[in-house]
Amino acid sequence: MLNLDVYLNLRDGDTIAAIATPPGEGGISVIRISGQDSFAVADRVFVGKSSLSASPSHTAHFGKIVDGEGNYVDEVVALTFKNPNSYTCEDVVEVSCHGGYIVTQKVLGMILTAGARAAEPGEFTKRAFLNGRLDLSQAEAVGDLIHSKSEAAYRSSLRQLSGELSREIKGVRDELLNLASLLELELDFSEEDVEFANRKSLEGRLTDALTVVDGLLSSYAVGRVYKEGVRVTIAGKPNAGKSSILNALLREDRAIVSSIPGTTRDTISESVVIDGIVFRLTDTAGLRETADVIERQGVDRAQKEAEQGDILLLVLDLSENYYNGIDPLYSKLERICGAAGIKVIKVWNKLDIHRSGAPRLPDEGRVFYVSALTGEGIEALRKGLLSAVLAADLGETSVVVTSARHRDALSRAGKSLRYSLETLRSGRSGEFVAMDLRAGLNALGEITGEITTDDILNNIFSKFCIGK
Amino acid sequence: MLNLDVYLNLRDGDTIAAIATPPGEGGISVIRISGQDSFAVADRVFVGKSSLSASPSHTAHFGKIVDGEGNYVDEVVALTFKNPNSYTCEDVVEVSCHGGYIVTQKVLGMILTAGARAAEPGEFTKRAFLNGRLDLSQAEAVGDLIHSKSEAAYRSSLRQLSGELSREIKGVRDELLNLASLLELELDFSEEDVEFANRKSLEGRLTDALTVVDGLLSSYAVGRVYKEGVRVTIAGKPNAGKSSILNALLREDRAIVSSIPGTTRDTISESVVIDGIVFRLTDTAGLRETADVIERQGVDRAQKEAEQGDILLLVLDLSENYYNGIDPLYSKLERICGAAGIKVIKVWNKLDIHRSGAPRLPDEGRVFYVSALTGEGIEALRKGLLSAVLAADLGETSVVVTSARHRDALSRAGKSLRYSLETLRSGRSGEFVAMDLRAGLNALGEITGEITTDDILNNIFSKFCIGK
Repeated sequence: MLNLDVYLNLRDGDTIAAIATPPGEGGISVIRISGQDSFAVADRVFVGKSSLSASPSHTAHFGKIVDGEGNYVDEVVALTFKNPNSYTCEDVVEVSCHGGYIVTQKVLGMILTAGARAAEPGEFTKRAFLNGRLDLSQAEAVGDLIHSKSEAAYRSSLRQLSGELSREIKGVRDELLNLASLLELELDFSEEDVEFANRKSLEGRLTDALTVVDGLLSSYAVGRVYKEGVRVTIAGKPNAGKSSILNALLREDRAIVSSIPGTTRDTISESVVIDGIVFRLTDTAGLRETADVIERQGVDRAQKEAEQGDILLLVLDLSENYYNGIDPLYSKLERICGAAGIKVIKVWNKLDIHRSGAPRLPDEGRVFYVSALTGEGIEALRKGLLSAVLAADLGETSVVVTSARHRDALSRAGKSLRYSLETLRSGRSGEFVAMDLRAGLNALGEITGEITTDDILNNIFSKFCIGK
Repeated sequence: MLNLDVYLNLRDGDTIAAIATPPGEGGISVIRISGQDSFAVADRVFVGKSSLSASPSHTAHFGKIVDGEGNYVDEVVALTFKNPNSYTCEDVVEVSCHGGYIVTQKVLGMILTAGARAAEPGEFTKRAFLNGRLDLSQAEAVGDLIHSKSEAAYRSSLRQLSGELSREIKGVRDELLNLASLLELELDFSEEDVEFANRKSLEGRLTDALTVVDGLLSSYAVGRVYKEGVRVTIAGKPNAGKSSILNALLREDRAIVSSIPGTTRDTISESVVIDGIVFRLTDTAGLRETADVIERQGVDRAQKEAEQGDILLLVLDLSENYYNGIDPLYSKLERICGAAGIKVIKVWNKLDIHRSGAPRLPDEGRVFYVSALTGEGIEALRKGLLSAVLAADLGETSVVVTSARHRDALSRAGKSLRYSLETLRSGRSGEFVAMDLRAGLNALGEITGEITTDDILNNIFSKFCIGK
């Protein structure tokens, strides 16, 4: 059920070109040309031993880019990919030129003058999807792979690119299609009162399908963590050691994190990578700026900030709180956040000073005793942060949903299947069961792109970078 | 006279790898591998239809990068270049992977683990030079091409890359070699008192060679302007309209300039591109910050800043200076800068207010009447800025020297040839003439790299980016 309009548009469509490599200065830049005129366009500017049109697919050719007046623009290597054996399944030429800003713009400019149109963001990958080389979830994985900022995000997008999610979705869809066909066949023979589909077996198979959908849906909690990281809010009195704990957590990762482009570092927000997952730790301004921290206003502000996050890290000072007791406002903040579904981790600091007699309070499973000074307990805290977001161990082979769009489609599919199951159980006509089944099938089809609209596609590909 | 040690080192040398495309996120990144083990290294991590070692040169292969445990790292296209038909003249494999930070580092990491060494800055181009694919001036042009920030810089580096300068140098060297051989042949037969080289003709040929060297040397004034741009210091009273003139000059180019990466823009320094040449205009802090501007200290500071520049742009206010006369300290600044070889351009502003009766002072060729408000005269000023630095029109085909290293070598060559000419004219033995000729030959040889040392090479290539 490929979108036929788009498909036809594309087949008659123009030839596009863009710089495919990152912007900036480097040894080489690559300009990608795709479309039915790629070879003709490239041959208008490329002068080599032989024309690119006459060259076999998958061959590299040294030559020069020359403008209309015969002026030499750059020395390049041009690479040929004849359809359908290319990234887009169209005729593709890739031109490697010198990787400077001016020279790359010059070469691109020449190619555009020679008849190509500047590609829109994600347009190459969009064509790869429309031509059936990738399904939609794989196409989205290309964008995620490029933008992944952590090992976990990289791993999960790579698995999605390899078609793991697609196969899982396809399995459920195939099963649902079978069930729908059975029900619809039954309708065709309704006069004869035949029952092709045994109700009990139908219910079993539908329940199994729903279990898979629900499983995928629940994997999003982890998938989001993989893809987007975890937002941790730190709250506590100024002398409790919030920043020392932040620094202790950062110690090993500072080099790794700072080398990832695009992770901004400022005084109140720092990123820690634990087992490939990015934790962005933000100090609560509300609790930080006032001397008598846990006053009414402070809690309000801390709560507001904590609600933006996934985890609240409450830092308590063993040396102070042991004798004075815990400020009741701490508990209040904890209670409010807990009720809002935010995971609360309590960290008792200064274990170096108060080793003996640490208050063994009722253990809610997320209490840690550390010394930010000596580093004692910090490793346990790292593991605690990790297990707070990866409570369900998914194992190596489980498929993880990382996209909000997929979660939304799965959620709609689940709803439809549940309706369908209810209708089935209520003994109503197969017609109604099939109707909801179809709705579920369509929702699942949106994930892999069997069912799609221009809006969905534009929304997905406009987020890509130009040249992909 | 290739550096044999380096050459031999290289032949036995290791296989290097680096990311050849700019850092950051894009559709694709390219990792380049060069050296005798390139194919073996690539085959250790690449899984495609056939091994790269067994594939013909200049062919592209779709496949996967896989780690030691069979885990899939990325989908890639690997490109084969068998020696000597590659950028470095060695066996080269170029791997195009997805252009994300993490994924590119992963693939590079796999390749390094598989036996390649991380390449040093410029090491690929250094190998291209050492293996004779490029001469040294061409290798330098690669770096200049990548870093060129203006059309003029791009054009001149491209011409140097195409071997224009090399051919010019080679022409002079060949001629000097002939002359030296003639003189040395004469020495071999000195017993017989033969004169192979007619002194008059020798003098003529030597003079011609010197003229070429001096011509190249003087082209550096323009070459430096092409490559590095022009530093313009603006001085004048606050109300004279310095910033309006700056803005009027900037008007058309703001978009162009701001789109070039690496051109910093702050309140006191702005870049204007005129005919592809970058003019960096700096406001003089000294004259700007004091109310009564042209006092002793102001002139000193303005002078100090102007001396860092190529042009001093003195802005005068027609409406004020016409009646009150020019502050003598203006003239003083002008005189001091003129004496220091800095070109002074006088701009009378506010022509809109004082059209009639503009003081037609003695025209030193660099006086302009403008209205920053209406834009009148600004185009003439742009042309004036341009002609101040391109006084000598070099035409389209002249070779331009853009590198300080080349200028230095040419200057030493010129000195030697002048000595040689003097010695010849003084009637002394051909032996002494030939000695200076040889020194000149060596100096010229440094430009193209016939004569070179490790120090020269390291100095040149360490300025390159990694991956080139």
